[in-house]
Amino acid sequence: MGHKRVEEAEKLLDVEVDVLDKGFVRLVDYFGDDSRIVEAARVSYGKGTKSKREDSGLIDYLLKNSHTSPFEMVEVLFHIKAPLVVSRQLVRHRTASLNEISGRYSVMKDEAYVPSKDRVCKQATNNKQGSGDPFNCVDAALVVKEFQEEQESIFCNYNEYIESGMARELARINLPLSTYTEWYWKIDINNLMKFLYLRLDSHAQWEIRQYAEAMYNIVKAVCPLTMQSFDRHILNGVKVSKAQKEFIKDAIQDLGTLTPENSGLSEKDLKDLLAKFGLE
Amino acid sequence: MGHKRVEEAEKLLDVEVDVLDKGFVRLVDYFGDDSRIVEAARVSYGKGTKSKREDSGLIDYLLKNSHTSPFEMVEVLFHIKAPLVVSRQLVRHRTASLNEISGRYSVMKDEAYVPSKDRVCKQATNNKQGSGDPFNCVDAALVVKEFQEEQESIFCNYNEYIESGMARELARINLPLSTYTEWYWKIDINNLMKFLYLRLDSHAQWEIRQYAEAMYNIVKAVCPLTMQSFDRHILNGVKVSKAQKEFIKDAIQDLGTLTPENSGLSEKDLKDLLAKFGLE
Amino acid sequence: MGHKRVEEAEKLLDVEVDVLDKGFVRLVDYFGDDSRIVEAARVSYGKGTKSKREDSGLIDYLLKNSHTSPFEMVEVLFHIKAPLVVSRQLVRHRTASLNEISGRYSVMKDEAYVPSKDRVCKQATNNKQGSGDPFNCVDAALVVKEFQEEQESIFCNYNEYIESGMARELARINLPLSTYTEWYWKIDINNLMKFLYLRLDSHAQWEIRQYAEAMYNIVKAVCPLTMQSFDRHILNGVKVSKAQKEFIKDAIQDLGTLTPENSGLSEKDLKDLLAKFGLE
Amino acid sequence: MGHKRVEEAEKLLDVEVDVLDKGFVRLVDYFGDDSRIVEAARVSYGKGTKSKREDSGLIDYLLKNSHTSPFEMVEVLFHIKAPLVVSRQLVRHRTASLNEISGRYSVMKDEAYVPSKDRVCKQATNNKQGSGDPFNCVDAALVVKEFQEEQESIFCNYNEYIESGMARELARINLPLSTYTEWYWKIDINNLMKFLYLRLDSHAQWEIRQYAEAMYNIVKAVCPLTMQSFDRHILNGVKVSKAQKEFIKDAIQDLGTLTPENSGLSEKDLKDLLAKFGLE
Repeated sequence: MGHKRVEEAEKLLDVEVDVLDKGFVRLVDYFGDDSRIVEAARVSYGKGTKSKREDSGLIDYLLKNSHTSPFEMVEVLFHIKAPLVVSRQLVRHRTASLNEISGRYSVMKDEAYVPSKDRVCKQATNNKQGSGDPFNCVDAALVVKEFQEEQESIFCNYNEYIESGMARELARINLPLSTYTEWYWKIDINNLMKFLYLRLDSHAQWEIRQYAEAMYNIVKAVCPLTMQSFDRHILNGVKVSKAQKEFIKDAIQDLGTLTPENSGLSEKDLKDLLAKFGLE
Repeated sequence: MGHKRVEEAEKLLDVEVDVLDKGFVRLVDYFGDDSRIVEAARVSYGKGTKSKREDSGLIDYLLKNSHTSPFEMVEVLFHIKAPLVVSRQLVRHRTASLNEISGRYSVMKDEAYVPSKDRVCKQATNNKQGSGDPFNCVDAALVVKEFQEEQESIFCNYNEYIESGMARELARINLPLSTYTEWYWKIDINNLMKFLYLRLDSHAQWEIRQYAEAMYNIVKAVCPLTMQSFDRHILNGVKVSKAQKEFIKDAIQDLGTLTPENSGLSEKDLKDLLAKFGLE
Repeated sequence: MGHKRVEEAEKLLDVEVDVLDKGFVRLVDYFGDDSRIVEAARVSYGKGTKSKREDSGLIDYLLKNSHTSPFEMVEVLFHIKAPLVVSRQLVRHRTASLNEISGRYSVMKDEAYVPSKDRVCKQATNNKQGSGDPFNCVDAALVVKEFQEEQESIFCNYNEYIESGMARELARINLPLSTYTEWYWKIDINNLMKFLYLRLDSHAQWEIRQYAEAMYNIVKAVCPLTMQSFDRHILNGVKVSKAQKEFIKDAIQDLGTLTPENSGLSEKDLKDLLAKFGLE
Repeated sequence: MGHKRVEEAEKLLDVEVDVLDKGFVRLVDYFGDDSRIVEAARVSYGKGTKSKREDSGLIDYLLKNSHTSPFEMVEVLFHIKAPLVVSRQLVRHRTASLNEISGRYSVMKDEAYVPSKDRVCKQATNNKQGSGDPFNCVDAALVVKEFQEEQESIFCNYNEYIESGMARELARINLPLSTYTEWYWKIDINNLMKFLYLRLDSHAQWEIRQYAEAMYNIVKAVCPLTMQSFDRHILNGVKVSKAQKEFIKDAIQDLGTLTPENSGLSEKDLKDLLAKFGLE
């Protein structure tokens, strides 16, 4: 009971993890850990689960079976510095608490995201939203230079407006989406896993993926067992449709009697596999 | 644009679909349909998706890839009559709006859920939460009779307290969980699918499953394409873990070159399957 | 029962109400009306309230006493076109559904918000976030021209990047906060009232206030009784602190015996006033 | 930065505060304190507020002006034991995390709420939902005895069903609403204040008010400055309608020129009062 402290997480407190050219993710504080999730689950499931299962098995069971409420009991609070283009994507994850620097109250610092040369890419041809092949080196260098000059020019104007006494809320209207902003972001682990699932994906914009990875690494320290199960069942698992399920069922049946030895699966994984495909 | 009307859904408006011995689900109203989901998605994805994809394919793509926000644009409003034991489970789905009859304002009707004889089951041995084998017929009949007599006795006391002028909020404290209550419940289709996924499952309590099935049948009329995709990818699909994915990948590879002909899968399903298992 | 139609609201369907220089608010659809709120409330409060109170009185009672759940039963769906600087504020109202045009999928149109001359103001001196006195006419005209030229220059670069085949998600990073974006926004009336309370306030940024006012006018047609109560109790009411309450109590007591005649208040308002200040 | 500890709150950790005859509220853990709220607010409002305002003034300003997001940054985790009739009311506060003991997994303990004699009251005549005058002593004693005997009888049957091997999810259907249940409940301070505002009110059921009071006392130790502001502006403040505002404005004007001396208000409260009523 009482406060939960995790040695590995303590080391990360207040450390700015660099992301992109000028951004960071910093763990301000965390609330609870794997053992809190287990403690909350045992309120629900009572004596029935108290003695036998170990924590790791219980957490794996909860995650695999969408018993999500115990994962809401743990929270992480991040301080994030990122371009507006990233903050606009992150804010769409609504079940979280957020305090962002306000350009109405404060003069925005003239810091903007300048992509590196190898980030300057063609529009993807295989998906409608992403980046494809890189530009050639000379063109990429030119683009980077242009981005930077454009940012300098815009901030120069902005600062002149501010000095002229213009209302901050108006002076900022032409600031670019590359402008760095900062915010506090508190989110529970259940909702963070949804965020990570979507934003670690290869279809997510490369910039937000860098932030998702930084957070993922931090949260691995806060609740390692939960993150192992997340890795196993969600991040590196796969969802199969009804027709695909039938096909795979047949393919598995064709293999004859399966054992942990000939399948290379643990006894638990094998049993679970057969159950999932109606082959018990 | 404007109001969306679906012929099949219109027929269901205001019809009480019987559930359990005295309960029902009634579609009070619905807001939007499959075409509204498509319309909302095309705001996000713009011209890029406008011409080519048909509605059905777009909805399938959205659902498969967890682009959930367009599904929030459609709402259904149900009037539900169910025992307290069911309402307590349903209310845990928080992203919904609810107005329930209040036992502080109103005198509760003396209606309680009496299970049928074949519902009187043993505790399951294979899972910790469910029902297993049925009781023998004589014992079951006895239990049903006892339940009913107990309910009658409790309601008799309750009604006496009410007649004596006792505060309703206090008179009700011994009413049983089998007491029928009623409520309005408004939920968007995205959150309804989460509800259905959990409450149509064989691990859900049998009583709430009856309500989930009644709602599922109604919503199939409101947004048939969405419910087809839900059936395909979520309800009858399966999630496979990292280790299981590796195993299945090998099993698929062992089958040699796959074609729609030898696999029995559509071209799209096959391509998608190979992509999921990293076999492109 | 069944669908709710309000004549005044029907006229507004699909009409683009102009906001700022290039934006609009359009009512795409609405779900329910005042009578739905009453219907839902009567589920909760049962027979006890059925006959006597008229709808208007019941709605007023609900709103005044923070019985908010019936107001969640009505939804409005807007199509909004507004600058990014406004969309960033609106998206902070989380209990709503949103589909916004994605600059990753689509090429952004070169439309940006250019404030009018009389909107070019000094930083407020009496509050830290707002706008104060206007600029003189010559300076304001110059600022407007500069904003516009800067926008043209940025969009010129953006379009060149797009033509060069650069990934859209990257090409857009220097687009200004004045860029117009579009989205579908669905929100229930309870949460819309919270939005309106905050964004119709004189401390809200002038630009978002224009959108809030356009929505307010539309919603007055959808649920006129609710909006009357909102106007009466929330928008034009006032919250008084503990110390201020004591002071006002004394001031009221000093006035001697109050009647509807000498107070100018309706009987109901007077009774309610005395009750609020503990003067019954 | 880092973990927040409040001496007064530390003393309350893991202490069961008795509520009703067999229930309790226990603070399991808390996340953040007043200084975290200030820290988060200063992210939003930046340098502009950094130096001058003291914490107490800033918190008061935030609460008075509905800047609610910083209050979401602090969380409390309670372990609660209460009758089902109370848990059914508490669960309606949706923006919270909850793990309740499940009667499907566990055998429910035979503990039920027995009201004390002086709690046995008549239906209120002045409001439709509450309790009014107490019963006479003899009748009340009889009612208490009847409640208890009815509970004993129901639990006796329940335990027999359990011993007969009946599925727990079915055996429980006649358990009374007075049955004690337990749950973990995590909620942020912003949402807790909404809960307290509604459930400390004299119109709330007496039983849930006892739980609200226990929580209020605990939270006063976790964030004393926030709770002072809550007491001042929300709990003991009052909302005045448009017509009442006009009336009070006139009453205040009649008093002539006000000063801190003749009004008894602090300079700040007086200035704020005049501003609220448009009398600056």
